[in-house]
This record gives sequence, structure tokens and C-alpha cells, in this order.
Amino acid sequence: MSLPASAPGFALIRVLRAGICNTDLELQRGYYGFRGVPGHEFSGLVVASDQRVVGEINLSCGHCEFCAIGLGRHCLNRSVLGIVKHPGAFAEYLTLPESNLHPIPEEISDEEAVFVEPLAAACEVLDQVPIASGAEVAVLGDGKLGLLVAQTLCAHGANVTVFGHHEGKLEIARRAGARICITDNPPAAKYPFVVEATGSAAGLRQAVRMTRARGTVILKSTIHGEVSLDTAPVIVNEISLVGSRCGRFAPAIELLRQRKIDVNAMISRRFPLSEAPAAFAEAARPGVLKIILTNG
Amino acid sequence: MSLPASAPGFALIRVLRAGICNTDLELQRGYYGFRGVPGHEFSGLVVASDQRVVGEINLSCGHCEFCAIGLGRHCLNRSVLGIVKHPGAFAEYLTLPESNLHPIPEEISDEEAVFVEPLAAACEVLDQVPIASGAEVAVLGDGKLGLLVAQTLCAHGANVTVFGHHEGKLEIARRAGARICITDNPPAAKYPFVVEATGSAAGLRQAVRMTRARGTVILKSTIHGEVSLDTAPVIVNEISLVGSRCGRFAPAIELLRQRKIDVNAMISRRFPLSEAPAAFAEAARPGVLKIILTNG
Repeated sequence: MSLPASAPGFALIRVLRAGICNTDLELQRGYYGFRGVPGHEFSGLVVASDQRVVGEINLSCGHCEFCAIGLGRHCLNRSVLGIVKHPGAFAEYLTLPESNLHPIPEEISDEEAVFVEPLAAACEVLDQVPIASGAEVAVLGDGKLGLLVAQTLCAHGANVTVFGHHEGKLEIARRAGARICITDNPPAAKYPFVVEATGSAAGLRQAVRMTRARGTVILKSTIHGEVSLDTAPVIVNEISLVGSRCGRFAPAIELLRQRKIDVNAMISRRFPLSEAPAAFAEAARPGVLKIILTNG
Repeated sequence: MSLPASAPGFALIRVLRAGICNTDLELQRGYYGFRGVPGHEFSGLVVASDQRVVGEINLSCGHCEFCAIGLGRHCLNRSVLGIVKHPGAFAEYLTLPESNLHPIPEEISDEEAVFVEPLAAACEVLDQVPIASGAEVAVLGDGKLGLLVAQTLCAHGANVTVFGHHEGKLEIARRAGARICITDNPPAAKYPFVVEATGSAAGLRQAVRMTRARGTVILKSTIHGEVSLDTAPVIVNEISLVGSRCGRFAPAIELLRQRKIDVNAMISRRFPLSEAPAAFAEAARPGVLKIILTNG
């Protein structure tokens, strides 16, 4: 086959490994109206240089007000790899601006590097909210994002308790140093920081209930549809709710390089790219963590 | 009549003027399950010393974790003047801990001093959220709290636009230096800071819509019942929602002393305490601003 063309300033990248994220499942269900090749978690090889890379997923214009302050992730004219108007990583090749790429240090395997993007999203919590080392943090949800957030916060030195429903998944957080808790009745008004990573309206309501006065709820996972929320405790207890999306790659790469996050335990299965439909079906099964697509 | 007794550390205070707040109307409708004398905005005279005072409304225990960090307003064991387990200001006398009292500077009239409490709640926005002088702020709502917030932010040097529906009320914000805007279609994703002071679910949704990426919505007025909210834009645009309640009295007193806030324009009518029922009815009429109760 002929290689896809890449525009000036763009690198052509051969995909090595790619990860299926919940967002990909949602795109498949028709959310966001995306058509084309999904996939935004990957490791790859720059065709022109053989450099192993990961790539930031937001393609920014470079001249809007957000680009001007170094927040290309919020560029008003952005496209997003595999999500908004830019073909994604579930393919043999992809293109990205060279400025979006980060070399993968040799300590990080092709497969581990797939986690840089979601781990950067976990690190974003610490970029947005000043959580001191030693602070009490509750993480709600033991899915992929919850486990990455929990491990990131443990590596940061926070005092983490993960609330979930799956012994096996919670074990990953426990090994990282988190307390784990399976309960239908978590403590009320206890935590100065609560990370909502269940993706459910009930999880968000629970998060508000668990947060102490002047505390912060970080909304880390997308909740579909409208959420019905009682704002009275938010106002009376002066709670902050902070939406959180993509993060910088540098801290995520550094955490993986230093082996501070165990992502290998989070891989449920691998499929060749040619079996992507089966891989998607597997990723959608309850209890499954990361599904990796391999390209050759 | 005999004077009410006051416990050790408490001052007996003769009420001079009191203000009716929306919270009082809500108490009357049965919210919060309060029974007894409402009223938490007042100026008074300490019986023992003839000192004119205003009083912070949260009675704190002094030894819980919030009291320990100087946040008695969030005391876990608090009672609240005229709201939670402590008789309020719509009476000839009230009692408050001496430590809750602030002398009224001579530049401030008895009537103006009634606004110290709600003005402190407006000032709380600046204690919680770092709004730079010159920052663009939208205030939604031209009721009492919206107008106090708008004036406070103008005095702070912010670039304030107030969105409301009443020419006459908005005029008060305009005189303070705010832009005013009557529209059903305010700009989307424009403001780094939006203060929600409409007290309506539609207002909160509008506030989120008007906030730019990485911006902050301050929830200043209580919204009754559950609010149905789409969290996707909150997460994608990394918006923060900050609940905001009572504030410190000192900055509010200073603003009034320096004549930086026009509260006199916000007084709709005065009633003697003996006509409190009529005063409440008037306060509940649409378009009415502050109703003052006078005691003797």
C-alpha cells in the first residue's frame, strides 16, 4: 500500500500499539457525531526518523487566545486525534503535527506508552487542583481512569482511598498504596478532595455527598445525559466542582519512566488491528480494563 | 417587658434595623425546617454598652476542625442566627456571642449596616476565587445579591457585565460602573468568571454556557430542588463551579465605610417590626428589593 501523505509540519507515524478508551466506545455509539477512524491512545514510530513517539491528541491552531497562553488543549479551532475532525490511531498509520510528539524513553515499552495519554489526563488533576502530599483524597470508581488517578495520586504522596466494586481492579490501587473500600454507604462530608471517575450521575451525587466543606470534587469522567444535582449542599458547604479533561504528557511520561505507575496490570487483552471489531466488543464487556490493539 | 437573658460570653442586643432576605422567605415557605424567629441581617445596640454593632450569623463551637482553621462559618456544630437553632433578628432583642460582633463605624447608618451581612456574602466571592482587577466577569441576576456582587466586583476593579431583566434594578449596577445587558441570548463561552445570582436552574445552565474554557462559575444563590445539568461542557472545557455562601464582615464594613457600595438605592420600603407580616408579603412581590424592618 502507499503511505498516507502528511502535510508540512506533520509527521507520518506508523502505529505500534493503540488502546481502546471509553470515549472510543462512546464514539461508536454515536456520541459527538464523529465519523472516521477513532483512536487517540497510541505509541508509534515516526516513518521519517524511526523515532518511537507518543502524541498529544489536540491539534491546535497556534494563534487563538488559548494557544497564546499555552493552552492548546483548549484551542478554539482544535481538531482532536480520533475524536474531532482528525483520523485516529486505530489504523496502520496516522499523522500528527511534529510539535505534538514526545519521544518515548527507552525505559517505557511500546505497550506501556499507550497509557501516556490517559495517564496525562490523570495527572491533569494535580495541574488543576493543589492537592498537598499527605492530603486525604477519595477516588470513586475502579475503572481505567479511576485506577490511573489513584496511582498518580499515590505517587504524589496523597492519602488515597478508592471506592469501587471489583476486588481484582481495586487490588491494582491497593498495590500502589491506596486504601480500598467496597461499600454502598461511603462516609459523608469527610474528604477535602473527591475524584469522580465512575462516569455515572449517581457517582457525581455521591462525590458531592462525600466532600467536606470547602472541599473539591474533580469531575474526571464524562457523564452522558443531564445529571440531576442538588446544588444546596454545594453552596452551603462551599464545595467546588472542577471539570477535568486532557493533561500535559511530560509528567505522565516521567511517572512511567520512573516505574511509579503499574499499567501492565491494567491490560486485559491484546488484539491485532485486523480484529478491531472483536476488540471493541471485548472492551465493552463489564469488568474489562485496557484492550490493546497491535499493528504488525 | 423583661429583657431576654443572655448566656456568658453572649451579648444582649436591641435590634435597630433588620433586613428581609430571600432566605427568610424560603424559611417561611418551610425550607430548612426552621421554627422560631427568623432574621439574620440587622444592626443593633449592645444593651450593656450602647455600642452599635452588626453580627456574624454563624455561632461556632470553637473547637471542631473548621473552627481550628478559622472557618467558624463552616463549624460542624454551628447554629445560625435566624436560620438554624438560634432565634433571629426579627424581634426587639437578639443575643449573639460577643466574638461575633463588629462595631459599626460612624460613617455607616443603622439602615446601611443591615447590608453588611449580604455584602459580606458578596465579598466572599473574592475570598474564594482569585479575580484580578480588570478581569471580565458576568453577573447573572439583578436581584439583591446580584446587585451587591456586581457593585463589589466593580469596586474591586473588575470589568463587570450584569445580565438581568429589570431596567430600574440594573441602573444601580450601571451607576457602580457595570455594563448592563437585557437579553435572552447572552454570549456563549465568553467569560472567565460568571456569578450565578438568579437562583434558578435555568440561570445555572446559562452560567455554564457563558463561561469560557478553564473559567469559573460562582454559585451565589441557592437553587431549590434538583438542577438538571449537562456535565459534558463542564468537563470538556474544564470549568469550575464554586459554591459560595457567607463571608467575612470586615471587607464588607470597609466597603460601606468608604461609600463604595450604594445600598440605599436598594431599599424598596420600610415597615415597623409590628407589621412584619405585611413586610414579608411585600418582600415576596416580584421586582421588590430590600425591605427593612424598623424597631422603635
